[in-house]
Amino acid sequence: MIKVTLPDGAVKEVADGSSAMDVAKSISEGLAKRMLAAEVNGKVVDLTLPLHEDVNLKLLSWDDAGGKSTFWHSSAHLMAEAVQQLFPEVKFWVGPAIEKGFYYDMDLGDVKLTESDLERLEKRMAELAKQNNPYIRKEIAKKEAINHFSEKGDEYKLDLLQNLEDGSITFYTQGSFTDLCRGPHIPNTGFIKAIKLTSIAGAYWKGDEKNKQLTRIYGVTFPNQKELDEYMVMLEEARKRDHRKLGKEMGIFAYDDMVGQGLPLWLPNGGVIIEELERLGKETELDAGYKRVVTPHIAKESLYLTSGHLPYYKESMYPAMELDGVKYYLRAMNCPHHHKVFAAEPKSYKDLPYRLAEYGTCYRYEQSGELFGLMRVRCLHMNDAHIYCTREQFASEFRLVNDMYLKYFKIFGIDKYVMRLSLHDPEKLGKKYINEPELWKETEAMVRDVLIESKIPFVEVKDEGAFYGPKIDVQIWSAIGREFTLATNQVDFAQGKRFKLEFTNKDNSTDTPLIIHRAPLGTHERFIGFLLEHYAGKFPTWLAPLQVKILPISDKFLEYANQLQKQLFDAGIRVEIDDRSEKIGKKIRDTELAHVPYMLIVGEKEVQDKVVSVRIQGRGDMGSMSVKAFMERVLTEIKERKNLEA
Amino acid sequence: MIKVTLPDGAVKEVADGSSAMDVAKSISEGLAKRMLAAEVNGKVVDLTLPLHEDVNLKLLSWDDAGGKSTFWHSSAHLMAEAVQQLFPEVKFWVGPAIEKGFYYDMDLGDVKLTESDLERLEKRMAELAKQNNPYIRKEIAKKEAINHFSEKGDEYKLDLLQNLEDGSITFYTQGSFTDLCRGPHIPNTGFIKAIKLTSIAGAYWKGDEKNKQLTRIYGVTFPNQKELDEYMVMLEEARKRDHRKLGKEMGIFAYDDMVGQGLPLWLPNGGVIIEELERLGKETELDAGYKRVVTPHIAKESLYLTSGHLPYYKESMYPAMELDGVKYYLRAMNCPHHHKVFAAEPKSYKDLPYRLAEYGTCYRYEQSGELFGLMRVRCLHMNDAHIYCTREQFASEFRLVNDMYLKYFKIFGIDKYVMRLSLHDPEKLGKKYINEPELWKETEAMVRDVLIESKIPFVEVKDEGAFYGPKIDVQIWSAIGREFTLATNQVDFAQGKRFKLEFTNKDNSTDTPLIIHRAPLGTHERFIGFLLEHYAGKFPTWLAPLQVKILPISDKFLEYANQLQKQLFDAGIRVEIDDRSEKIGKKIRDTELAHVPYMLIVGEKEVQDKVVSVRIQGRGDMGSMSVKAFMERVLTEIKERKNLEA
Repeated sequence: MIKVTLPDGAVKEVADGSSAMDVAKSISEGLAKRMLAAEVNGKVVDLTLPLHEDVNLKLLSWDDAGGKSTFWHSSAHLMAEAVQQLFPEVKFWVGPAIEKGFYYDMDLGDVKLTESDLERLEKRMAELAKQNNPYIRKEIAKKEAINHFSEKGDEYKLDLLQNLEDGSITFYTQGSFTDLCRGPHIPNTGFIKAIKLTSIAGAYWKGDEKNKQLTRIYGVTFPNQKELDEYMVMLEEARKRDHRKLGKEMGIFAYDDMVGQGLPLWLPNGGVIIEELERLGKETELDAGYKRVVTPHIAKESLYLTSGHLPYYKESMYPAMELDGVKYYLRAMNCPHHHKVFAAEPKSYKDLPYRLAEYGTCYRYEQSGELFGLMRVRCLHMNDAHIYCTREQFASEFRLVNDMYLKYFKIFGIDKYVMRLSLHDPEKLGKKYINEPELWKETEAMVRDVLIESKIPFVEVKDEGAFYGPKIDVQIWSAIGREFTLATNQVDFAQGKRFKLEFTNKDNSTDTPLIIHRAPLGTHERFIGFLLEHYAGKFPTWLAPLQVKILPISDKFLEYANQLQKQLFDAGIRVEIDDRSEKIGKKIRDTELAHVPYMLIVGEKEVQDKVVSVRIQGRGDMGSMSVKAFMERVLTEIKERKNLEA
Repeated sequence: MIKVTLPDGAVKEVADGSSAMDVAKSISEGLAKRMLAAEVNGKVVDLTLPLHEDVNLKLLSWDDAGGKSTFWHSSAHLMAEAVQQLFPEVKFWVGPAIEKGFYYDMDLGDVKLTESDLERLEKRMAELAKQNNPYIRKEIAKKEAINHFSEKGDEYKLDLLQNLEDGSITFYTQGSFTDLCRGPHIPNTGFIKAIKLTSIAGAYWKGDEKNKQLTRIYGVTFPNQKELDEYMVMLEEARKRDHRKLGKEMGIFAYDDMVGQGLPLWLPNGGVIIEELERLGKETELDAGYKRVVTPHIAKESLYLTSGHLPYYKESMYPAMELDGVKYYLRAMNCPHHHKVFAAEPKSYKDLPYRLAEYGTCYRYEQSGELFGLMRVRCLHMNDAHIYCTREQFASEFRLVNDMYLKYFKIFGIDKYVMRLSLHDPEKLGKKYINEPELWKETEAMVRDVLIESKIPFVEVKDEGAFYGPKIDVQIWSAIGREFTLATNQVDFAQGKRFKLEFTNKDNSTDTPLIIHRAPLGTHERFIGFLLEHYAGKFPTWLAPLQVKILPISDKFLEYANQLQKQLFDAGIRVEIDDRSEKIGKKIRDTELAHVPYMLIVGEKEVQDKVVSVRIQGRGDMGSMSVKAFMERVLTEIKERKNLEA
């Protein structure tokens, strides 16, 4: 008998050689039918793998990440089977699960796949899935495996075999298809109920452009049609909300080849959003006792040698500019400059906590292949700040930073977020982590306590802290559920010493401050990219580049429209007139498409009664009201940074 | 007889061989006595130089720049005479007039001059001046001149002689001193009534540090003691107002060796001033219909090749960063980025004038010897904007820009300013100037008309325009009369074409916009440097880093002080409490020294009556008033950006 410990701590004794599937069945047949794979001592394996020793066991369903990825990897095999049946000459390379679905790279010879091929493949996959073919694992000797693929003339799998050790090699077979594969797989193809092959792409063998280009087919599968339907709706919504598409349509940002890749030009409408975000950040930071500084975008090499970013971080920095024999670097982070501001004047305990904020712009080198819209860029306008405090002040300062995050989440209607607390590994102190065991324990505990007390959802990850202290990554989900990593929040007990930062205590002794690095709004680039998707371009009034559009029914009412415009503009509202000679219906439609929150229809009646007829974006006619009432409504909405109601 | 034309157009006929002095005497003996030199056909010469042809003549007195510089150059000779009498071994190099005074470089062998030597020299100069020795000009053959200095063993003058042509060489003698000199000089030493030798410095021969170090004595002289006294007061005031001294004392900015020369760190108090200036700029530009953009600080080489800044301007730029085989430059100006913003979306005549504003930061290479406080730096935060307009819109746009300058001058209490209009030279069209004769004439005339109509004082300078259009430099004078060149305003009809910028007309034809480059507040660096001197650190309330300091008479009143502080802070006032256990007299003195506009004294009476006792910086006790009344007063002052009354 062996002991199987389940995640809830329950221990089951089962016969040696039992599988996870047996354990599942012993709990409930219904449960067993829903399981896709198992996690044994932290490793995902086949449900049917015989167990021969005491283990920790977790059964994996579709709701588990490990279950999903196994499902998708098995789907890749299913697709390969279908491809092999339709294109018998095909040779396969690798076919992994990815974040959402799977792909398989293959050599189709001269065959060029079309959309209709994908449909044929989907159909065949569905037929094969219905056969409920089990995925059968077979251990195989290396020699035998080589024979198998030599006979098939499959140079790709032979290439893979070269790097595998004898004794660790397995084949998996379902239906007519056998693949060299380490697994694991789901029990049988019958689980795969809904299939969508999403795209065809080219992929160089081994990612090397000197090699042959293979065909890559992407797909995604689900255990039921409903989830696929929802996914397709979400995909379509995501396409509509794509920040690159909206960014262009709405005049938010543009790239220019002469300026450079990853270096966005913020167009006037983007400039408005930046200005509003900065105003919010500055107001919030002023209230929270931050001081604003302005520091250069470059510095001498010695600054980064002192901070330790050089040579460690060199590959992520732009190359040096050499001037009068001195190397200058474009900064990739603001902290060293802020440390120098701290050091510029003597500090006493009375000056602490000393909170320095700057909308600092940094430049980082990302490989051109990594660049993506506003999400991966080379220029980062950062809502940055550094807090220098005593150990006694640390917990309260950290709590204040967290409160600020929560305040921002509320303003932007971010309901789903999680913080990822990255800790050190005591065994790597003095190597990967600065050797301050007490400070590590102390600050980790303080950070954890604050997160718990603030009821902020968080997960802990060991051995992923920064060199200089525990780190908190903030993950948020947009309105349609896409995940974004927004910002990093770090505790730092290394830089203070490296820069010899000091403050004098009451008793005239000196101490080094702890430093908190924080950037709740992340970078303009990523955050505005997120907001574009989150709001689908329908910004709340305070953020909308254009807040009110006045639509005169005809040119006769232009004078009144002009008066109105002046009145609104003087009150600080961003307003334009649609003075085209178009029908009012078209003006309304165009304004809706441009995502302007408010439309004021101006005609005979409005001029006579000195009122405005108000339409709200996406909600239609709100009736007429006095100009004063309208202005009060809009100005309140702006001042309170209200989100539009759904 | 020859004809002499005077500046007012009057023509005098005088005998051939007459001098400017003769002409002056023929007008009035009194006038003649005040003259120092003459300008003959644009060249400054001795008053006594015989004239042999028809000339344009301007007599130069102390009030003319040419008169002053002649006076100071003659003073350098007078100083040399005194030095030679006290240190007979001295050898002289060159001794020019400078912006304010003169210097002479000399080889004094092993002698090290002290302050008391300067006093002895001043005394001797005064004695020599009283001798009324004439400055006597003598033309001399090169050979004879060489003999003269060879006999003296003067290698310095012999070196100068090498580069002079025979026939153009003159000696000047006054009293016991003879110098190789091209002149001109004042009639005699008697004009020099007030003398101050200001400093001693080292100067490498010919500016080359491999050469011997010479002694440089700086001095300044005046035609009367009153002017010297005023000058010394101004010097002392300037020393007190030195922006470097005030900038450090007030925590405005700092330099750090690891960051780099010419790259100021703006400390929190500087950050406040920057924030206020930017708010003013943004408000003003919003009202004036500008759109704000944000663009990267770097761009590919191709952008600057297109603009023409490369290779022409290369030496003033930081060196390139090469990345993936492409050269990137840190920008030295914002215009090319703005042109790319203009080009990012199609434009029609309806979009014009299109006004793009950005607080853009630029980096320029200045030699380290040229760097000076905030006045000559390598990092420039610029209040920049570019206006794209049609030819028809140009005059009105230009007028609006000028109005904005005037608005700013008023806000900052700048009473003295002048614009310097730099024009093209028609003979250099197609070479130094873009070959658009009509556009040159048209825009120059428009600019001139606007300046005249706006009653802005201006001077015109031929052949100093920019390559792409006429240019206006703005010169302002601080409260103590020091001159600053603040900003440049340029008309540009070249860049639009280089960047192929276009807009469509009503008839669907396309045109290239004219561009106005403007930066009324210049750079933060220079403008804040100017303001520090202009206000002597006593910023008006809206700009003051700290606006109100609450001074409790004892700790007993701290609670009331805290309440007050919260009330003021919530209203947006920058306020602190002096909670030190110091006597109230010391607290007041320290707050005065820190240039805080308002002090609120808080004691028994104030707490009881719920009032505040107000002191204004430099004006003393204003009596007590209600908190509400005080806040209204301060908030109005801030909102209206009032200058403090004298």
